[in-house]
Amino acid sequence: MAHQYVLAVRITADPSTSPGDYEFRHRVRVRFAETDAMGIVHHSRYLPIMEEARVEYLRDIDHPYQSVRDEGLDFTVLEVSVQYRQPIRFDELVDVYLTLSQVDRASFQMAYLLTVADQVRAVGVTAHGCITAADGRPTRLPTWLRELRR
Amino acid sequence: MAHQYVLAVRITADPSTSPGDYEFRHRVRVRFAETDAMGIVHHSRYLPIMEEARVEYLRDIDHPYQSVRDEGLDFTVLEVSVQYRQPIRFDELVDVYLTLSQVDRASFQMAYLLTVADQVRAVGVTAHGCITAADGRPTRLPTWLRELRR
Amino acid sequence: MAHQYVLAVRITADPSTSPGDYEFRHRVRVRFAETDAMGIVHHSRYLPIMEEARVEYLRDIDHPYQSVRDEGLDFTVLEVSVQYRQPIRFDELVDVYLTLSQVDRASFQMAYLLTVADQVRAVGVTAHGCITAADGRPTRLPTWLRELRR
Amino acid sequence: MAHQYVLAVRITADPSTSPGDYEFRHRVRVRFAETDAMGIVHHSRYLPIMEEARVEYLRDIDHPYQSVRDEGLDFTVLEVSVQYRQPIRFDELVDVYLTLSQVDRASFQMAYLLTVADQVRAVGVTAHGCITAADGRPTRLPTWLRELRR
Repeated sequence: MAHQYVLAVRITADPSTSPGDYEFRHRVRVRFAETDAMGIVHHSRYLPIMEEARVEYLRDIDHPYQSVRDEGLDFTVLEVSVQYRQPIRFDELVDVYLTLSQVDRASFQMAYLLTVADQVRAVGVTAHGCITAADGRPTRLPTWLRELRR
Repeated sequence: MAHQYVLAVRITADPSTSPGDYEFRHRVRVRFAETDAMGIVHHSRYLPIMEEARVEYLRDIDHPYQSVRDEGLDFTVLEVSVQYRQPIRFDELVDVYLTLSQVDRASFQMAYLLTVADQVRAVGVTAHGCITAADGRPTRLPTWLRELRR
Repeated sequence: MAHQYVLAVRITADPSTSPGDYEFRHRVRVRFAETDAMGIVHHSRYLPIMEEARVEYLRDIDHPYQSVRDEGLDFTVLEVSVQYRQPIRFDELVDVYLTLSQVDRASFQMAYLLTVADQVRAVGVTAHGCITAADGRPTRLPTWLRELRR
Repeated sequence: MAHQYVLAVRITADPSTSPGDYEFRHRVRVRFAETDAMGIVHHSRYLPIMEEARVEYLRDIDHPYQSVRDEGLDFTVLEVSVQYRQPIRFDELVDVYLTLSQVDRASFQMAYLLTVADQVRAVGVTAHGCITAADGRPTRLPTWLRELRR
């Protein structure tokens, strides 16, 4: 795969800390393997949790990731941003709120709010580019995804 | 530990893509375990690589992380931002360039440039808060760290 | 913590591939972040999945891990063994079957069977030692755990 | 890829705790991201470290992993076993000793000894099968690998 990425997009969303501003919620229990020697979830481990929520969101709107691949497409990660407000600990149940915050011709952004027992723990944004699975070239988003923001 | 974080700082650096703008370089070889099913390094795996470079930088300036702990302090991660420009693959040798890009009273920021064979692969910024190791309260940076930007 | 481990135990269980031989089942969906460039779940990623099942088993028998800590105890990992029979892929739903396969004075073993859609994917065993949380010394298993095998 | 694994091999090696019994040594510094809330390296994180040593061993004997792929072959992980003797901590320098402990027609085993400052921390064994990269079928080991044990 060539993986010619589109020009860097600039993350524009400033994620809300209000769950009501999000479309979708996915709940995850923190694994012990995700903690570090400070006794909290390592900062790198928020990204796989956000990714898991993203995958469940796509399934929820009837476009599971496999159907994207079946269209000959793939979504790459262009940019991520996370603000850690309060630590998350082993065995806590994290509600990951997610919304499609921006849709452009060949890229889109998602915003995230992570809470535990209704307390804000983190907010984040990820930006994704659409590429052809065959040769990794940037391409237009599928119609169903562009129409989600109409 | 209470881990009362300082108010969220806003990442201000726009990382340079020129190695000459960085203070320090650390080289890392990509592990197979860091790749994902797209055949490239998973986007979450850049953060431990950037952290490894940060630890080596502190050792290089004669303030290894253990000496920070011995002062009764700890550095938390407040915010991260990564822009993925080109993918990184298994077995590639990554040069992680790093610089202390901002120093405030109780927090600091570091900027990163990741290259492979002099090609830009990613840039990033991490923001860190200084806390007391005993109770996790925000506290002033140690003098040596504030003086690095004088 | 001193973490003086007990003498190495030798894993004795030869895990059954029949779900009926197991006490407990926990279902996990594979994350994309757990795959590697061979397109399958990386062999190291089975251990956190087995650990997640272990934590849920303890919760299920009304001895959640936190209650172990509250007794002043901790469980260390002394030994692991995994046999990979068929690969596991992104987005597959894995049934992790688990049973307490051996209980000794200061250590215990758990056996695992991982299936996807009733097909065997892996079997494994983990051996754990009981230590005091305060100083990491080996100590007798709590009574409730020893009585599970009576 | 079909990934039809060969029949499970039974790990036969009982790894030596004497560095002199090993062919190769690779040194790794522990990352903070590899620690867990017990303050030690998480037991799952030993496997990527052993894998990194394996990759360096292949490079050292002039058969880097890419050359295996270029022959149309791949090595899968069939089985792993690790005995944790003493914990490993953040920032420690780990010497990973490695030897090719068994070579069969279509599989091989490697034994590992992990030390820090000459103290034994862990031993392990991994068993690998040779498959065709194209369709994942078990196949004979390349000649150079079989000849390593003659």
